[in-house]
Amino acid sequence: MKMETTLQGLTASLQIARSARKIIGFVPTMGNLHEGHLNLVREARKLCDVVVVSIFVNPIQFGPNEDFDSYPRTLEQDSHLLAEVGCDILFAPSVEQMYGTQPRLTNIQVNKITQDLCGAQRPGHFDGVAVVVTKLFNMVQPNYAFFGQKDYQQLVVIQQLVRDLNMPIDVIGVTIARAEDGLALSSRNGYLTAEQREIAPKIYQSLIKAKQQLQQKQPLAMVLKDIGFELTQAGFEIDYVEARTTLLQSIEQFDQDIVLFVAAKLGKTRLIDNLPVKFTG
Amino acid sequence: MKMETTLQGLTASLQIARSARKIIGFVPTMGNLHEGHLNLVREARKLCDVVVVSIFVNPIQFGPNEDFDSYPRTLEQDSHLLAEVGCDILFAPSVEQMYGTQPRLTNIQVNKITQDLCGAQRPGHFDGVAVVVTKLFNMVQPNYAFFGQKDYQQLVVIQQLVRDLNMPIDVIGVTIARAEDGLALSSRNGYLTAEQREIAPKIYQSLIKAKQQLQQKQPLAMVLKDIGFELTQAGFEIDYVEARTTLLQSIEQFDQDIVLFVAAKLGKTRLIDNLPVKFTG
Repeated sequence: MKMETTLQGLTASLQIARSARKIIGFVPTMGNLHEGHLNLVREARKLCDVVVVSIFVNPIQFGPNEDFDSYPRTLEQDSHLLAEVGCDILFAPSVEQMYGTQPRLTNIQVNKITQDLCGAQRPGHFDGVAVVVTKLFNMVQPNYAFFGQKDYQQLVVIQQLVRDLNMPIDVIGVTIARAEDGLALSSRNGYLTAEQREIAPKIYQSLIKAKQQLQQKQPLAMVLKDIGFELTQAGFEIDYVEARTTLLQSIEQFDQDIVLFVAAKLGKTRLIDNLPVKFTG
Repeated sequence: MKMETTLQGLTASLQIARSARKIIGFVPTMGNLHEGHLNLVREARKLCDVVVVSIFVNPIQFGPNEDFDSYPRTLEQDSHLLAEVGCDILFAPSVEQMYGTQPRLTNIQVNKITQDLCGAQRPGHFDGVAVVVTKLFNMVQPNYAFFGQKDYQQLVVIQQLVRDLNMPIDVIGVTIARAEDGLALSSRNGYLTAEQREIAPKIYQSLIKAKQQLQQKQPLAMVLKDIGFELTQAGFEIDYVEARTTLLQSIEQFDQDIVLFVAAKLGKTRLIDNLPVKFTG
């Protein structure tokens, strides 16, 4: 595996693959890799000739009171893990490499679907994601890009961005990787105390229970309220408990596939999770 | 020359060129082609193996009271002209091919440099340009793209967009093509009456005179005021007479290269022109 820290190096490393029209797969990450990320790389490995992973903690997608400074940076360990799962090129640019020294004047907004769920709690977050993903896509020029379904809203936003701007890339969503007790894997899980870590799987448990209740025709509003009640009882501070269509629209029919969303804090640590519930097919 | 009206057709037509790693040049236009456009194609022809020209009157860059409906559409004539100057692929999509049937949620803004000059008069104009140019770039995936310097602000906005988002494209500005009497060529010149067409070259004449005055160290503010006075006397309604640095910043030193800008109406027809004035080198 090669590691590149500059755009020039990345371009040089990709030169042969591009000339030979190899299929390039791309997994953008913020590092501090866990099995969820490694699953994305394994998926890319299956479909593509050349697998590029980026590690970049993107300042412009963090709010002023969020954890940009304290976000875990574990490049050496990440690099070993990536080599093991068959990554070909690790791209780990500095902030200056990504954004240069001249001010950036261009902004990208994906409207509507960024306005609620995590977007409501994190103003500007998805603008920052849209810009960095567009930049990375233009740097790597992959055929396929892989994103985890844990950040479900992010996945749908990026699919919309790619479709709206005709980017020549297939965006693939990969199933959430979970700990044995069901907790969705996340770099932020590392912030949890031992006690909080015991409580954390209740998010997934409440989603599973909700799914069963919905399949038993219990009304959605009541089921969502139950999740909120249970998690609050367990010690969470709820950001939101919501349901949307698979494309993040409001639910207007009872017979369409939906996704349940939870964002909740344990202490200062914000956890998110989601679960699709099928009513069709 | 091949003409394609769908993205699928365009992609198929470009397939061989892409596989062979040919250099692709791209000239986006709104059609009703004149020598200015044909010069762009000739420049592309010099630098590139394959030349793609798009003709698309982009609804989202026109304001509600602008000339989208009446904008001249002369595809058959354009197509003959393009074949003559060596265009390989003419891409002339419908609005539905470009924007699809689902609502577009993504918007792109290039801030600051879009806020004055034509941007002040045409709110949303450069957002519409940024979106359509990004879409076309992603469809064609050219190595080089060619834009006329007549729309100088547009050229700088697109160069900024490309740099900010790391699009893998060289954007090349081509000198303004002028009629013998100096009038900058423009599709909108066709709207002028015979009498207005006689007056129209005064814009260029006033710019040339201003350049000479500046080179004789006359103060900028006075020179700009003179242009406005002369053109108003001649029957123009002034939109703006301005000077900026070559990157569209305010002028803060007296020894840097600048560009003079005029936008003015003759009757309902809005004409723009500009002229660089060098103080260095």
